[in-house]
Amino acid sequence: MNLEEEFRVAPGSRVQLRDSDADRTPGVNREEGEREHAKNVVRIRDLQHRLYAEGRRSLLVVLQGMDAAGKDGTIRHVFGPTNPQGVQVSAFGKPTSNELAHDYLWRVHSRAPSRGHIGVFNRSHYEDVLIVRVLGLVPDKAWKRRYDHINAFEEMLVDEGTTVLKFFLHVSADEQLKRLTKRLTNPAKAWKYNAEDFSKRSRRPAYVEAYEDMLEKCSTKHAPWHVIPADNKWFRNHAIAGIVADRLEHMDPELPELPEDGHRMRETLEGTREG
Amino acid sequence: MNLEEEFRVAPGSRVQLRDSDADRTPGVNREEGEREHAKNVVRIRDLQHRLYAEGRRSLLVVLQGMDAAGKDGTIRHVFGPTNPQGVQVSAFGKPTSNELAHDYLWRVHSRAPSRGHIGVFNRSHYEDVLIVRVLGLVPDKAWKRRYDHINAFEEMLVDEGTTVLKFFLHVSADEQLKRLTKRLTNPAKAWKYNAEDFSKRSRRPAYVEAYEDMLEKCSTKHAPWHVIPADNKWFRNHAIAGIVADRLEHMDPELPELPEDGHRMRETLEGTREG
Repeated sequence: MNLEEEFRVAPGSRVQLRDSDADRTPGVNREEGEREHAKNVVRIRDLQHRLYAEGRRSLLVVLQGMDAAGKDGTIRHVFGPTNPQGVQVSAFGKPTSNELAHDYLWRVHSRAPSRGHIGVFNRSHYEDVLIVRVLGLVPDKAWKRRYDHINAFEEMLVDEGTTVLKFFLHVSADEQLKRLTKRLTNPAKAWKYNAEDFSKRSRRPAYVEAYEDMLEKCSTKHAPWHVIPADNKWFRNHAIAGIVADRLEHMDPELPELPEDGHRMRETLEGTREG
Repeated sequence: MNLEEEFRVAPGSRVQLRDSDADRTPGVNREEGEREHAKNVVRIRDLQHRLYAEGRRSLLVVLQGMDAAGKDGTIRHVFGPTNPQGVQVSAFGKPTSNELAHDYLWRVHSRAPSRGHIGVFNRSHYEDVLIVRVLGLVPDKAWKRRYDHINAFEEMLVDEGTTVLKFFLHVSADEQLKRLTKRLTNPAKAWKYNAEDFSKRSRRPAYVEAYEDMLEKCSTKHAPWHVIPADNKWFRNHAIAGIVADRLEHMDPELPELPEDGHRMRETLEGTREG
């Protein structure tokens, strides 16, 4: 199955998240999915090395999803085995006062991956049309303009050498509640507890509408959104790693050849050894 | 005379720089211009203070021009008397290797003025459709796409609270040569000498075409270009300071009133004094 085609949102189309089953695992059972995932993680590691050595292009992976949708887990399971020298993860939480003193793209632009690198955004500029909209932190007129800004910003990144892949991690209301509750009962997960997560969950319909608008307006040809069924962690990992690996393979980064002066150096050294 | 209207480039219109007299000083003689300038500088200083105290919006002034067009002098004469705490000047020279590892808007975006501040760009992202084009540092296809990126970037800044004013300092070929030559003969100006300035001057027709395209494609309603006759330094200063002062006045930044808890504090202190 072509995972990217399966989960990509066609530009301008409306996804009904309520009708979209967060529990489905099309094409694979758990055993197959985990076997595939193990292979994909190795593919990503090898391709990331070639991307780094080539040093000309970059990949930006944007992860969005409600609380407990599995953004942190995705990063660990998909990018964990890569060389951290070539991967830059940026988590965008509540903006600092310095960040708020600038336009909302300022802090994300500063973390755009440099040539040869993979950048992973754990939340992103999309928060500025999600929570900012739901809580009414700016006037309607202001967030409505942002879809165009964001599309233009991402298109510029693509034109200048960055491939952009965006994933919405779709969890059902039930699965989300189960995971949030675990944070209350499992001491190992207590550090993730945040009372706000529960109050945000009570606004789920407003968030769903904001996500649906975001997917409709900002899944573009140059920077597509993918809606990943994320109730099953193994499937979420499998799908995202598969799409990332396929895309890196399609980018086909090349290990540069030894430059001319390297050849001369080799000849000199060989001459020395023979002499 | 409304200076902004006089020198603003109408969106989509073509300025013929060769036919545009860099020596003209419409509306004022030198004495009047200098007297006006002295007043405008005080207006800018006072309005900048109010902008800073208000802390909600910002002003970005972009200066472009050929070598020796007077960008440094403009900054000194127009913004010299302002409080440096509220003014951030950024000079964009040859990009560093870290800057080159990112898209060309990355370094300028990072220096966008924060709320309450005036940002001055001495050269800017426009270099990426000027020298980069003339020297063929990227393929034609790449720089041609940038006009759209730049317009979208500036529109986002405007939507998010920054006023953008752009000035092209227009010097004639003769005046430019005179100024460059002074760098060879006047020890106080020797530090500005750069052999490249002369080689760039020999490509003047290519630069003129690149500037004309930039003015045509990127003078927008939200972020207009102004072509300032700059052979006479006093007139250049007068025109730019006048436009900046008028625009700041139009923005009408407000000194915030004493907040509620400040009133309570005052009452407490007054009570203490009376008691």
